[in-house]
Amino acid sequence: MKKLINSVDNVVTDALRGMAAAHPHELDVDLDQHIVYRRRRKEKGKVAIISGGGSGHEPLHGGFVGTGMLDAACAGEIFTSPVPDQMVAATTAVDRGAGVLHIVKNYTGDVMNFEMAAEIVDADSGIQVASVVTNDDVAVEDSLYTAGRRGVGVTVMVEKIAGAAAEEGRPLDEVAGIAARVNAAGRSMGMALTSCTVPANGKPSFDLPADEMEIGIGIHGEPGRHREKVAPAAEVAERLVSPILAELTSLELPDAAGPDEGVIAMVNGMGATPLLELYLMYGEIARLLQGAGITVARNLVGNYITSLDMAGCSLTLVRADAELLRLWDAPVNTPGLRWGA
Amino acid sequence: MKKLINSVDNVVTDALRGMAAAHPHELDVDLDQHIVYRRRRKEKGKVAIISGGGSGHEPLHGGFVGTGMLDAACAGEIFTSPVPDQMVAATTAVDRGAGVLHIVKNYTGDVMNFEMAAEIVDADSGIQVASVVTNDDVAVEDSLYTAGRRGVGVTVMVEKIAGAAAEEGRPLDEVAGIAARVNAAGRSMGMALTSCTVPANGKPSFDLPADEMEIGIGIHGEPGRHREKVAPAAEVAERLVSPILAELTSLELPDAAGPDEGVIAMVNGMGATPLLELYLMYGEIARLLQGAGITVARNLVGNYITSLDMAGCSLTLVRADAELLRLWDAPVNTPGLRWGA
Repeated sequence: MKKLINSVDNVVTDALRGMAAAHPHELDVDLDQHIVYRRRRKEKGKVAIISGGGSGHEPLHGGFVGTGMLDAACAGEIFTSPVPDQMVAATTAVDRGAGVLHIVKNYTGDVMNFEMAAEIVDADSGIQVASVVTNDDVAVEDSLYTAGRRGVGVTVMVEKIAGAAAEEGRPLDEVAGIAARVNAAGRSMGMALTSCTVPANGKPSFDLPADEMEIGIGIHGEPGRHREKVAPAAEVAERLVSPILAELTSLELPDAAGPDEGVIAMVNGMGATPLLELYLMYGEIARLLQGAGITVARNLVGNYITSLDMAGCSLTLVRADAELLRLWDAPVNTPGLRWGA
Repeated sequence: MKKLINSVDNVVTDALRGMAAAHPHELDVDLDQHIVYRRRRKEKGKVAIISGGGSGHEPLHGGFVGTGMLDAACAGEIFTSPVPDQMVAATTAVDRGAGVLHIVKNYTGDVMNFEMAAEIVDADSGIQVASVVTNDDVAVEDSLYTAGRRGVGVTVMVEKIAGAAAEEGRPLDEVAGIAARVNAAGRSMGMALTSCTVPANGKPSFDLPADEMEIGIGIHGEPGRHREKVAPAAEVAERLVSPILAELTSLELPDAAGPDEGVIAMVNGMGATPLLELYLMYGEIARLLQGAGITVARNLVGNYITSLDMAGCSLTLVRADAELLRLWDAPVNTPGLRWGA
């Protein structure tokens, strides 16, 4: 195993120390509790939003702390849920009297720990907490780590759009409702060319022969749907687009604020995929979507929810009405996502 | 070789097609000539800036086309200089009567082709062209591809800062002078944990044993200074910081507009390095710089000038006076770099 780390025991602390040094005016990083806080706190009355999860998916979640997105992020060890104490501390610190939304990816540990934290907060301080659990991965129904679909790429869109709604001063129930709408309207599918290597394990999480790829992979090296020979990018794109559209286009979205204006599409790198290849994949995906009569209203191409040093990519599509697009376009100023500020 | 491509012959065209699809409102991409243009052209009188080079270093250069940075970028094949016809076409298209600055990385082919293009433009149309050649890599004096130092990370800073000067309406000689100042004040050093694989070659450019790293590597898999056993991040940071400071701190910078306000520091990923590790490296580097009494005035951590799928990183430091920092802070709105717009 070759990694730019000091020791397998201090990876997360050392990385957070570097993140704090790199963003001294934007972030306050609690190196003991592994919590990344937005430095410029909003005035009283804004709904606060926190998220968190295992580390190794950077820039998610700490890189999305800032204006227009998260107020705090709790970092677990690599691929390991943060503990309830972290969420309790973060929730208590960011509340400004308007309540706190928890954005939780659907993994058993994360869901359990965020639920426990919400109960503790309620008992201790009465801070209002709402939760949305993201579950957008069409690859598998249950898995090693999940009951139901895994929470993956849509989490980025939920954090962005809910963040914009909170920034507008909307109340907790509305912000939570918008977050749930985005999740319900989003689906993802991923693939891997190589495994990732968890530092503490020191070896690849799975073996993938030199001429094979895995379709439907999760973000922790969990198994996918199947393996097949490595194929041209156009075929890989087909493997991602088809299963997503099979679910997404037939969805009834009763909460939508209006007709679909198109999809928000994200082609996400798993950590070790060059941007050249991600753009190339986006070109193939855009062509398939056009062929299916689907308008891409907005897009992201890059590393947003990674899996350490895995080579591969994922596609996330979110059906968006005019309100979701307006919130998507609102200014955001975080280390991992910036525009229009 | 596993890559998300269709065929080794069409990698650059297919990637540019995807880039065009991803940024329809920002970029105009000429898929025949492999030129990325800024879509919203500035009015008459603005100095235009173009750059270019071999592909494989994304987001450089095409990802830095946009407001506050480049007006166009010419993409060569992977690790291969673009040809003079591309620079001629780009220069002619972007000129608004105030002349065009060419930003050229110091590799024999790039320098020769940009020079030839400038001569053709001069003979054909009389458009004023100025050039700055970046040469910041302290690792080696001459190399397989270069006479003198290689041009690497400082190119990002030159494009950003010269772009801001052009945006202010400064004349060509001043924009070129500022670009030259940034280059003169910048030094870089890189390291690799793994080789990159050029698609057309189908195999890694060099062999690096499972327990070794290469210090002083270039961005095309060119040899570095030496190989050694993989070391903790703190020691890797030392290998990058020391040779840069040995040159940078003793430099006389006669053109500086004032005293140093600190350095602009960039920790750049080579393409396959997780952001977690880049932040971790930044933490170690920031600590070393603090120990050396050097103030980091601004920083970038991420993938800015990559080497396909190489794992590793580079450090660039630019000594900056107040004017350079002001231009650095000016709004920029490109796919690869956005702030303050």
